[in-house]
Amino acid sequence: MSNIEEDRPRAHHEETHDDIYAENGSIRADFLAMVGAAIGDRDILFLRKHVAELHESELGDLLESILPEQRMALVRLLGNDFDLTALTEVDETIRMEIVDQMPNAQIAAAIGELDSDDAVYILEDLDQEDREEILAQLPFTERVRLRRALDYPESSAGRRMQTEFVAVPPFWTVGQTIDYMRDEEELPESFTQIFVIDPTFKLLGVVDLDRILRTKRPVKIEAIMRETNYPIPADMDQEEAAQLFEQYDLLSAAVVDENGRLVGVLTIDDVVDVIQEEAEEDIMRLGGVGDEELSDTVMTTSRSRVPWLLVNLLTAILAASVISLFDATIEKIVALAVLMPIVAGMGGNAASQTMTVTVRALATRDLDIHNAARIVRREAGVGLLNGAIFGVLIGVVAGLWFQDVNIGGIIASAMLINMMAAALAGIMIPLILDKVGVDPAVASAVFVTTVTDVTGFFSFLGLATWWFAIGK
Amino acid sequence: MSNIEEDRPRAHHEETHDDIYAENGSIRADFLAMVGAAIGDRDILFLRKHVAELHESELGDLLESILPEQRMALVRLLGNDFDLTALTEVDETIRMEIVDQMPNAQIAAAIGELDSDDAVYILEDLDQEDREEILAQLPFTERVRLRRALDYPESSAGRRMQTEFVAVPPFWTVGQTIDYMRDEEELPESFTQIFVIDPTFKLLGVVDLDRILRTKRPVKIEAIMRETNYPIPADMDQEEAAQLFEQYDLLSAAVVDENGRLVGVLTIDDVVDVIQEEAEEDIMRLGGVGDEELSDTVMTTSRSRVPWLLVNLLTAILAASVISLFDATIEKIVALAVLMPIVAGMGGNAASQTMTVTVRALATRDLDIHNAARIVRREAGVGLLNGAIFGVLIGVVAGLWFQDVNIGGIIASAMLINMMAAALAGIMIPLILDKVGVDPAVASAVFVTTVTDVTGFFSFLGLATWWFAIGK
Repeated sequence: MSNIEEDRPRAHHEETHDDIYAENGSIRADFLAMVGAAIGDRDILFLRKHVAELHESELGDLLESILPEQRMALVRLLGNDFDLTALTEVDETIRMEIVDQMPNAQIAAAIGELDSDDAVYILEDLDQEDREEILAQLPFTERVRLRRALDYPESSAGRRMQTEFVAVPPFWTVGQTIDYMRDEEELPESFTQIFVIDPTFKLLGVVDLDRILRTKRPVKIEAIMRETNYPIPADMDQEEAAQLFEQYDLLSAAVVDENGRLVGVLTIDDVVDVIQEEAEEDIMRLGGVGDEELSDTVMTTSRSRVPWLLVNLLTAILAASVISLFDATIEKIVALAVLMPIVAGMGGNAASQTMTVTVRALATRDLDIHNAARIVRREAGVGLLNGAIFGVLIGVVAGLWFQDVNIGGIIASAMLINMMAAALAGIMIPLILDKVGVDPAVASAVFVTTVTDVTGFFSFLGLATWWFAIGK
Repeated sequence: MSNIEEDRPRAHHEETHDDIYAENGSIRADFLAMVGAAIGDRDILFLRKHVAELHESELGDLLESILPEQRMALVRLLGNDFDLTALTEVDETIRMEIVDQMPNAQIAAAIGELDSDDAVYILEDLDQEDREEILAQLPFTERVRLRRALDYPESSAGRRMQTEFVAVPPFWTVGQTIDYMRDEEELPESFTQIFVIDPTFKLLGVVDLDRILRTKRPVKIEAIMRETNYPIPADMDQEEAAQLFEQYDLLSAAVVDENGRLVGVLTIDDVVDVIQEEAEEDIMRLGGVGDEELSDTVMTTSRSRVPWLLVNLLTAILAASVISLFDATIEKIVALAVLMPIVAGMGGNAASQTMTVTVRALATRDLDIHNAARIVRREAGVGLLNGAIFGVLIGVVAGLWFQDVNIGGIIASAMLINMMAAALAGIMIPLILDKVGVDPAVASAVFVTTVTDVTGFFSFLGLATWWFAIGK
């Protein structure tokens, strides 16, 4: 629901961006010290003037930067001046910590002031009981709206949408529409387009505000509206919706229910967050980390990282058992033990390059059935070329190091073989995982490293065993 | 410059998103086949109807999916119906390939139709000579505008901004402003806010379109304008500008020159691209890959990956030389050679988890001076805990495997030591690199792996040498 007061240009706080943030993007130490002192002194006037007026994202950054014990004190001191929107800008752990300690009545009062998408964002993490208690204290229409959004699946467009929008019938003129907007008090806080609907709320079209402004008053809305090419079903996954925004440079888009009725509007600022989250997820998964947050404890963090390390332990033991096949050879020629990690390690690095490119190209949909064959050929070519380069290089180094041309030749050949294996594993494994519906960002690294470790050790030690057996 | 014809709701092509794209997001095979056949038959009517009307991003995807030899044929067949904006949606290699083969006169004619930001995007990659030739063929004002944008440094806000905007004086009324927009023919293609300037183009404020629409005609613009809290200097780096957009949920922002004069407007759709690119860059750098594109050749790809592999080769040789310190021990106990890669590898994986979290937290500015100490303590705790867990685990496995409790104890201790080293290296190295101004995403992995390899081999083999020497 829109808050009328908010519609006036907002009282601007005295701090500029540079007063709050240091060069490197963190909150300035002197600002933190001032706020800390004010919290200590219970200086409500100072906090109202310098903290309550901060932009929600600034307040969020501040909450993340102060000490945990200062956080609740600050929220309590600000009371009703605390802008709950700031909670949409902090870590989940901090959000839960604050919400858990606030009385439900205060949350309910504050929720009523928020845009529906922000309200849903905060409500969806609460447990059932608290959520119901808060919803029960809201006005009827407000409650119905939020319930409806919360009924859509997690991470769906319906969860992220705002239920406040401006909608007009197609037979209105531009003049009527402008007059309506001038008189209506319950408009959304900000909007960039208005929707055209029939009496049953079925979506007919959309008009951007700049089009209304450049059209003469008597013109009918239906004459200037355009078809909404990309109405977003409320149960569409937010990631898919974000891709539509990105592809078609949308600023906002209508969200419709299964009957094509307008239920809300999805805006680019929420979509930017989704895009960020998705890229973040890929980075974390490639690094073998799950849904971690900086505010997690040692136990939580350890628990979330153990499964990945366990899988890696198993593959490391597998690789070790490959080495143990050749222990007799190693016993005779210790140089092999010294050199073998080089072959395996270089393969791992080359594979991780190919894998990174492949996983990203799959995520951005740049790699598909039409160009897969070409990319596989290219990666094989790169593997061959780089394998030859680094084979020769390490061959010379190892030959000189151990004064043995045989060892040089063997490691050169093993390097070439493993770099080729690395290239093929780096591209084929993500492609296959994607094909069978497994997220390549999560699982590729394990399989790929296993291939390069096993191939590296087997080719190097195997070639050596065979060569020196012949030599005898 | 705005094209008036474009201002009318655009003729909608017959294909919906689902007619063009398959479930997995790639262009449908049957659509590709139809277009391919039409190109083969030189069926210009078909191409005009089904291809020329595509959205620029759809046309871009199509250009990336068809065969290289079809690409130029398609561009030639479409002639002046080819929407040059599509070139902003394709790989640099493909863009250059197409632009190189188009006559400069045709490019100049098409450039005149584009928004200035798209025009700059295409022009900036051309060589000096072609660029001058094309600019020379443009109308004077157009040429001056583009030259000014091109004068700003690469990747600056000035390069990405659009030079078309609506600006009015503060003493105009809302009514005057609306009348102006109704009558003026040279308005930007779309806009969400208008700027308020003084006679010297100095930026005074900004008004969102929804505010104009809900205000009565006699009200003065200066009464409803708000201060622009975040005017963007034209030479600000695009990444920094993107962070402002993200933090303050901006849809567009004024770009000003060194004298505070309005020179253009930066819009969220360009910023979304920047955000994507930056996340992409981090992923690629963490994976040891540079500025690669899928359309690069084997040679280009190989050349871009060799430096990283070379650095890794050097660190691998360093790790190998640590092993060679203990060759006498390995000769006696081959089990050590079998097990040592497990210690090094697990350290590498644990370090990569910590490093990924740290690098991302630095990039998103969630990790800073205020919480660094806490996070370092947490990671040390996680390293200790996971080191203990996996130390015991591998100790038991190795003890049973080689039927030797000494080896079990030694590998358990080495694992604990290396996991601790991994945790500390994983967080300290990115922090230090960031502090000294080196991008942690690029360089962290090399240093971190070196630490875990060297520590892993040294602690395991060193402990073994010491223990078995005592045992004698």
